[in-house]
Amino acid sequence: MSAKFDTVTIIGVGLLGGSLGLALKERGLARRVFGVGHRESTLQKALARGAIDEMFTLPMEAAPKSDLIVICTPAALVPKYLDAVRPLTAKDAVVTDVASTKAAICAHARKAWAQPYRFVGGHPMAGSEKFGPEHASADLYVDSVCFVERRDGHAEEAHAAVVDLWKAVGATVIEVGPEEHDAMVARTSHVPHILAAVAARLAGANPDLRPFIGPGFRDTTRVAEGRPEVWRDICLTNAEAITRMLEEARDQLAQVLLALSTEDAETLERFFAEGREARRRLLEP
Amino acid sequence: MSAKFDTVTIIGVGLLGGSLGLALKERGLARRVFGVGHRESTLQKALARGAIDEMFTLPMEAAPKSDLIVICTPAALVPKYLDAVRPLTAKDAVVTDVASTKAAICAHARKAWAQPYRFVGGHPMAGSEKFGPEHASADLYVDSVCFVERRDGHAEEAHAAVVDLWKAVGATVIEVGPEEHDAMVARTSHVPHILAAVAARLAGANPDLRPFIGPGFRDTTRVAEGRPEVWRDICLTNAEAITRMLEEARDQLAQVLLALSTEDAETLERFFAEGREARRRLLEP
Repeated sequence: MSAKFDTVTIIGVGLLGGSLGLALKERGLARRVFGVGHRESTLQKALARGAIDEMFTLPMEAAPKSDLIVICTPAALVPKYLDAVRPLTAKDAVVTDVASTKAAICAHARKAWAQPYRFVGGHPMAGSEKFGPEHASADLYVDSVCFVERRDGHAEEAHAAVVDLWKAVGATVIEVGPEEHDAMVARTSHVPHILAAVAARLAGANPDLRPFIGPGFRDTTRVAEGRPEVWRDICLTNAEAITRMLEEARDQLAQVLLALSTEDAETLERFFAEGREARRRLLEP
Repeated sequence: MSAKFDTVTIIGVGLLGGSLGLALKERGLARRVFGVGHRESTLQKALARGAIDEMFTLPMEAAPKSDLIVICTPAALVPKYLDAVRPLTAKDAVVTDVASTKAAICAHARKAWAQPYRFVGGHPMAGSEKFGPEHASADLYVDSVCFVERRDGHAEEAHAAVVDLWKAVGATVIEVGPEEHDAMVARTSHVPHILAAVAARLAGANPDLRPFIGPGFRDTTRVAEGRPEVWRDICLTNAEAITRMLEEARDQLAQVLLALSTEDAETLERFFAEGREARRRLLEP
């Protein structure tokens, strides 16, 4: 297979960016991969792992030579890098990102760039609470789902390139509108994450609790190991949908509190039965 | 090793009771194990698995011949079975249970029985969302923690027998007062469970959400697969401690909602950082 891309610039070479670099290299999808970041030590690690071929601390050194630029920074930094690379990119270059929220970022790109758009938002659902290029893997995206901004005013070949990119590294691509995407992930990821953080915070750091911790607590709170700055940015860039869902969560807690105070066995049983039912329907094959 | 017990009656031969029966038999800790339950089909399964030697649908047929009676029913049924077996037990018999809440059950036993108490509450932290004797295992309690009601007005040999029982099947025993126990498990188990159910319910059963579900949602909501009637009973028998914690959870959600509406990045980052810190301190070796 010949390389699909000549030069790919990855801005932010952590777990997601580093894994993308490794996948591009191992699968022969790019002739060369440039890494951009503000921390030299992280870039050095990505270089040592073979995730990138050259490293730069400024996008202006890499972006002009690239036919694909993938912004793999936390969500809140994506608009900043979009603004930085926009005047630097070649006319036929394509720009995308991997942030977990899409509405704010895609709206920013649409305001900054003229049609047909050459920025196509992406969100590969991969990764874990681990971070940094040292945990990168060429197979991170295999059998994962990647959301790609639904084509709407985009240059056709730019949109196709981003879809092909994720398919080529092993992901299943689902096209979705940015607002719809954000409402969905607020339900399935962002608010569950906030609830997991609440559970961890309620336990606090009281060492007397240690013997009382079982596998349930471990699983329920696992995602609370995520990086605080990443989750801060997700909240800030998806505030509206998260707020709606958190208000629903608060109403549900109020229902449970009322049922507890009135010893309402039926409501309590139904509450748990509906939770089980919802989970089963979503996860059943 | 000679059997520690002659005849053990297990009331409720599901996952916990069935596993205890298997462990007692396989480790030669009891000469014979009686199973009591209201469903013949469950008793038949436990008999077929070798978890019990004989089955009865009424405790009066088994309890008088037993030197140890272990009530392995959901929490809300324990007081009922305590009242049923109390007039039936031999003078030197010992009674215990495995319910996840202890304050209401131990208080009930203390009111019903004269000192020195021969009921000693227990709570082995084992099991999962699976249930029924078909999932029972002789090793379920190996390397688990079992809470045993702290000795306080108990007959010394009765208390020692319950501690020995759990040690003999592989558990580490921690003695704790019933109220303290319930406050602790409200934090580490009951309220995390309710939050997991909230997360599952928020996702609802909308099939469009399926592609948006990742491993985080799976883990965060895993415990929501638990049996609704078991969790209803846990709520009803630990209402006070759960209410306190749920009010704290509601206050935390209010903090996040306020931070979202004011774009307070610092508070959001601290919220997640504190959650991560709490989890790490509790789970670090």
